[in-house]
Amino acid sequence: MRETKFLLTEKEIPTHWYNIVADMPNKPLPPLHPATREPIGPEALAPLFPMELIKQEVSQEKWVEIPDEVRNVYAKWRPTPLYRAYDFEKALDTPAKIYYKYEGVSPSGSHKPNTAVAQAYYNKMEGVKRITTETGAGQWGSALSFACQLFGIECEVYMVKISYEQKPYRKMLMNTWGANVYASPTNLTNAGRQILAEDPDSPGSLGIAISEAVERAATDPDTKYALGSVLNHVLMHQTVVGQEAVKQMEMAGDLPDIVIAPFGGGSNFAGISFPFLRLNLEEGKKIRCIAAEPSSCPKLTRGVFRYDFGDTVGMTPLLPMYTLGHNFVPAPIHAGGLRYHGAGVIVSQLLKDKLIEARAHDQLECFEAGLLFARTEGIVPAPETTHAIATAVQEAKRCKEEGKSENILIHLCGHGYFDLKAYEDYLAGNLTKHEITEEEIHASLAKLDTPIPQ
Amino acid sequence: MRETKFLLTEKEIPTHWYNIVADMPNKPLPPLHPATREPIGPEALAPLFPMELIKQEVSQEKWVEIPDEVRNVYAKWRPTPLYRAYDFEKALDTPAKIYYKYEGVSPSGSHKPNTAVAQAYYNKMEGVKRITTETGAGQWGSALSFACQLFGIECEVYMVKISYEQKPYRKMLMNTWGANVYASPTNLTNAGRQILAEDPDSPGSLGIAISEAVERAATDPDTKYALGSVLNHVLMHQTVVGQEAVKQMEMAGDLPDIVIAPFGGGSNFAGISFPFLRLNLEEGKKIRCIAAEPSSCPKLTRGVFRYDFGDTVGMTPLLPMYTLGHNFVPAPIHAGGLRYHGAGVIVSQLLKDKLIEARAHDQLECFEAGLLFARTEGIVPAPETTHAIATAVQEAKRCKEEGKSENILIHLCGHGYFDLKAYEDYLAGNLTKHEITEEEIHASLAKLDTPIPQ
Repeated sequence: MRETKFLLTEKEIPTHWYNIVADMPNKPLPPLHPATREPIGPEALAPLFPMELIKQEVSQEKWVEIPDEVRNVYAKWRPTPLYRAYDFEKALDTPAKIYYKYEGVSPSGSHKPNTAVAQAYYNKMEGVKRITTETGAGQWGSALSFACQLFGIECEVYMVKISYEQKPYRKMLMNTWGANVYASPTNLTNAGRQILAEDPDSPGSLGIAISEAVERAATDPDTKYALGSVLNHVLMHQTVVGQEAVKQMEMAGDLPDIVIAPFGGGSNFAGISFPFLRLNLEEGKKIRCIAAEPSSCPKLTRGVFRYDFGDTVGMTPLLPMYTLGHNFVPAPIHAGGLRYHGAGVIVSQLLKDKLIEARAHDQLECFEAGLLFARTEGIVPAPETTHAIATAVQEAKRCKEEGKSENILIHLCGHGYFDLKAYEDYLAGNLTKHEITEEEIHASLAKLDTPIPQ
Repeated sequence: MRETKFLLTEKEIPTHWYNIVADMPNKPLPPLHPATREPIGPEALAPLFPMELIKQEVSQEKWVEIPDEVRNVYAKWRPTPLYRAYDFEKALDTPAKIYYKYEGVSPSGSHKPNTAVAQAYYNKMEGVKRITTETGAGQWGSALSFACQLFGIECEVYMVKISYEQKPYRKMLMNTWGANVYASPTNLTNAGRQILAEDPDSPGSLGIAISEAVERAATDPDTKYALGSVLNHVLMHQTVVGQEAVKQMEMAGDLPDIVIAPFGGGSNFAGISFPFLRLNLEEGKKIRCIAAEPSSCPKLTRGVFRYDFGDTVGMTPLLPMYTLGHNFVPAPIHAGGLRYHGAGVIVSQLLKDKLIEARAHDQLECFEAGLLFARTEGIVPAPETTHAIATAVQEAKRCKEEGKSENILIHLCGHGYFDLKAYEDYLAGNLTKHEITEEEIHASLAKLDTPIPQ
């Protein structure tokens, strides 16, 4: 019998998170105060986050120990399996070996609980009663709902309205885990009311929902805020994925030549790729790490490297990032988790330093790849995840043309059980391309008056 | 760190299915021809099933080898994990140790692919072009859609109308895997038209959907039929679940005192319990095996042991089973997979011989137990699965009263990602009890004119 899965035991759940900042040749630039535009220190984040997470956010330590309480919860689904995609390879008729690391086995169906559990734990340790957050497709919101329920913390989720309407089951899942979910923009915050005044039919965006959740936390001493991507500590928590994958690829016989992950804010990509990048930085390996983004929201491939806000209204610190501008509202594609204007600071610096690659895909290409994957491997991938699969299809075809048997590793970061309406729309021919023009990108970036990093 | 999961390697996927018939003290009685009411042989099933499955249906061999092609597909998700439910135990404040075998990791989210893959394989080997089937909640229909897609067979699913409406995502999942799905009763078959003539608003039932699917297969030489439960070969295919669980409970330290599974037609219950019953029958162990059924469809606890049809219209052979009568249409509870009037032949005989137990639960009790499970263990169980959890809660409370630390094993046969509307209804207080009266059961059974087994 052929070997399909590469499994680790519970004892092999990583004991530490990997902080790539320690190994980066060029360290990330400091965040700036949104008003003064001067560099800020960790204390500026205290209204929003518990101190332990702020320490992690600015840490230069290479390894941060994972508390036993967090590892015990990880054990509900970790280590996750790594698969060889025999049937997908066969359908592509490629000499490449395709592997995927599957995070969809978590209770909420994606990699997001890896950081949600850690964040809920540190909030609980510091006596926080309530956590607010935003969510796009709902992957992050449901992960945090699950984590908060386990640690006895209230959870309040601002869900991008277009996703709230497209994915009612995500809301129900969050409710099942005891969270309160609102369609953003809401009338509950100044930020939401401001957006609604300008556009009562706003489909919302991650940037808007972040503004709402941040405002709630900033104005209520019992409430903290949690982010599901972008920030350094969030990316670091996700490195359990890649650490396991390194071991599993060694079990499978060889390290990957290419590691591919979808790209929203960076945590998904960081999670799988940073432990492989460590091998590049430490041992001189040449593993290509590719971030796959939607062509309707192409900050990595068509954005600029610049200080920008993390949210739409401009409440967060200014971060040095690849961005399309914080006012950019992407088309309402089904991959709601990728509809974010900017990239995390670390990933942006890595791209600037050419240590990673980026590629953009149209949603039709993504669903074609995702459907083929579902019909061969069995797992229906989330719309976000199909972006990485689309890149893998391109690379597998290149391998065929070049007659090369490269190892390709996909981060299969989530399943699409809650996103089947997207597949129905695709099968019915109701999806369209959402390419944006140079003029649209230029118009959005022209509104920025933020500093340009030196 | 505590040990949460007990995992087997891919090499430990069982090599054989276990056929409990070989070990039963009283063998099942023969099926009867629907018209002549005389015992029938295997040849009578030839229009509906491929010959290899018919051989398995009547086999007296204790072990049937699993083809490598089937084990290779099983490897996409098997062996499945067995968990210790620490957080659920803590919430129940019980000295009992509660374990669960989780089949929700399969591509379609339940145990059903264990037999769907085997059935699709044998149909493919015998050149079958198309398979028809029925489905209740959609677990079985989606499993067969997945299996048919892998083996290149067309799949046609008659889905009980009430579930079709309650669970639109299940239909989309089947479509994603390339199946055609119809809301049953349909106008496509004589059986469906007959039901609609009597009640144009019929919510459907598994019995009606079976009539439709069987009629299609019986009247088209290119088409065979597949059943997701009840029949002997289907139950046998599911024994991979219990064989793994026996090993995993030994890894966890001890065999269970009690094994609990939801009960629809029997395959779920058989899958986990038969390999434990084997230990009772062979080695004199005293493991209690409890089938948990809905109080709105209580064939095991309030039905009669009698020859009855497997479908509503009366096209199938007569089987000796615990039944509420083949005209019984259960209330439209959310656990659509348990809305079936009869129990499989083997399970019925085992219950008659007092080798297993049965218990009925109201849906409110089930969702209360299921919600507690979701909020402690993280996995949202399917409505069917909550019935087993409700029994486990009762047994855990008894253990507390009696001060006993028994080992309880739950068959967590499927997740509830597609059933969240049910949880929403429960949380909103919109679900009601569906107890049925003695008069209703009596009225349904009074219509039977079928033979009473001696």
